[in-house]
Amino acid sequence: MKLLSPDELEQALRDIGARRYHRLHPFHHLLHGGRCTKGQVQAWALNRYCYQAAIPMKDASLIARCEEPAIRREWRRRLVDHDGEREGEGGIARWLRLTDSLELDRDDVVSQKGALPATRFAVGAYIRFVRERTLLEAIASSLTELFSPAIISERVDGMLKNYAFVTPETLAYFQQRPPQAQRDSEFALAYVKRHALSADVQEQVLAALEFKCDVLWSMLDALYHAYVSPGHIPPGAFVPKD
Amino acid sequence: MKLLSPDELEQALRDIGARRYHRLHPFHHLLHGGRCTKGQVQAWALNRYCYQAAIPMKDASLIARCEEPAIRREWRRRLVDHDGEREGEGGIARWLRLTDSLELDRDDVVSQKGALPATRFAVGAYIRFVRERTLLEAIASSLTELFSPAIISERVDGMLKNYAFVTPETLAYFQQRPPQAQRDSEFALAYVKRHALSADVQEQVLAALEFKCDVLWSMLDALYHAYVSPGHIPPGAFVPKD
Repeated sequence: MKLLSPDELEQALRDIGARRYHRLHPFHHLLHGGRCTKGQVQAWALNRYCYQAAIPMKDASLIARCEEPAIRREWRRRLVDHDGEREGEGGIARWLRLTDSLELDRDDVVSQKGALPATRFAVGAYIRFVRERTLLEAIASSLTELFSPAIISERVDGMLKNYAFVTPETLAYFQQRPPQAQRDSEFALAYVKRHALSADVQEQVLAALEFKCDVLWSMLDALYHAYVSPGHIPPGAFVPKD
Repeated sequence: MKLLSPDELEQALRDIGARRYHRLHPFHHLLHGGRCTKGQVQAWALNRYCYQAAIPMKDASLIARCEEPAIRREWRRRLVDHDGEREGEGGIARWLRLTDSLELDRDDVVSQKGALPATRFAVGAYIRFVRERTLLEAIASSLTELFSPAIISERVDGMLKNYAFVTPETLAYFQQRPPQAQRDSEFALAYVKRHALSADVQEQVLAALEFKCDVLWSMLDALYHAYVSPGHIPPGAFVPKD
């Protein structure tokens, strides 16, 4: 691979999003297009909880390996966003209000017992990627957030329009996310553009974003297989009532 | 959970196999029933290579945490079985002869580039389970081999009968495995029965075997989703020619 300018690197990262971000996945289209049953929306929310719950651990392990106070402070906002300042606040608590409003039992959701094994394996792979790879690759793997404001607005509009069981309160999580994701991804992108200065390292950075796209994509693949078509729910996983 | 006798524990382990081993998976039935295309058999062999290639690393990390020379010696046979005594011998080399005979490019197989992300995540979860859990849980997670002689004989008979492109040489890997698996699983089962002596630990041991069944099951789920129905191959994964 040849050395890219910072702007070419940004373009190459955005191209990965255009080809591999889970906004392109058939399950996303079903979900926001109103073609999911309530049981399928429950399965999505229950599995996605595993991801939400892991994010602050992922971010803390990134901070734990970062020697610059300014970067650590910036990254710390993500902990605040997800864990809040007190009980009942933050993104994880808002996600649990979403699963509450879908009439899932909170203990079941938090225990992650009914989650698909493939979800747990994908989330585990992401946590360990951030823990074990270089700090730059760990930061680059967060760059799917460059693409999340678009998917979130499609999801919120589509779900509110199409599902009687979804209200603005259900989706409170998503109302907070776009400005946070924009702020965070701009910071991460600037960091990556500033630090990925050799062709080898640029290749690592691009691979890190592809890896992260694979994590999100494989979570929707597993949902599709288990709950849409052919609908083979693996032993032990959540079985919808409707 | 109540405390089980060693024989009750064995029965509980065998019950997990009867309910959750991937012999029950629809992809297994398609494969040995002759209802796979050559491309689907290629996809299976290519993805399963990731698992085969990881097994000796998994076993070495188990030996690395084991303080008893007798156990280490016993477990070392598994390294010999998979890696052989010299280049071209052992289970991994035999698996590559299987992918060769399916006309897959050897470099492509070894690079694992066309493997499904879900395969890599499942295999990674297994390696880290063995590395991070107790030695007893690591040993218990190997107990799927109690059930493998039956699946292997179904697979070999069915594949030889049903696919013109499969010969006895293609399946040389499987001809070696049943006696190895029987010897290894008997040793592991005896170890687990001797050491899992409290209800808590027995619960961990049963959960370890369930986890391992989930690993194997999720690999077939991912193959089914990508290459059978609905046939959504994730971005970057192997695309069969026929």
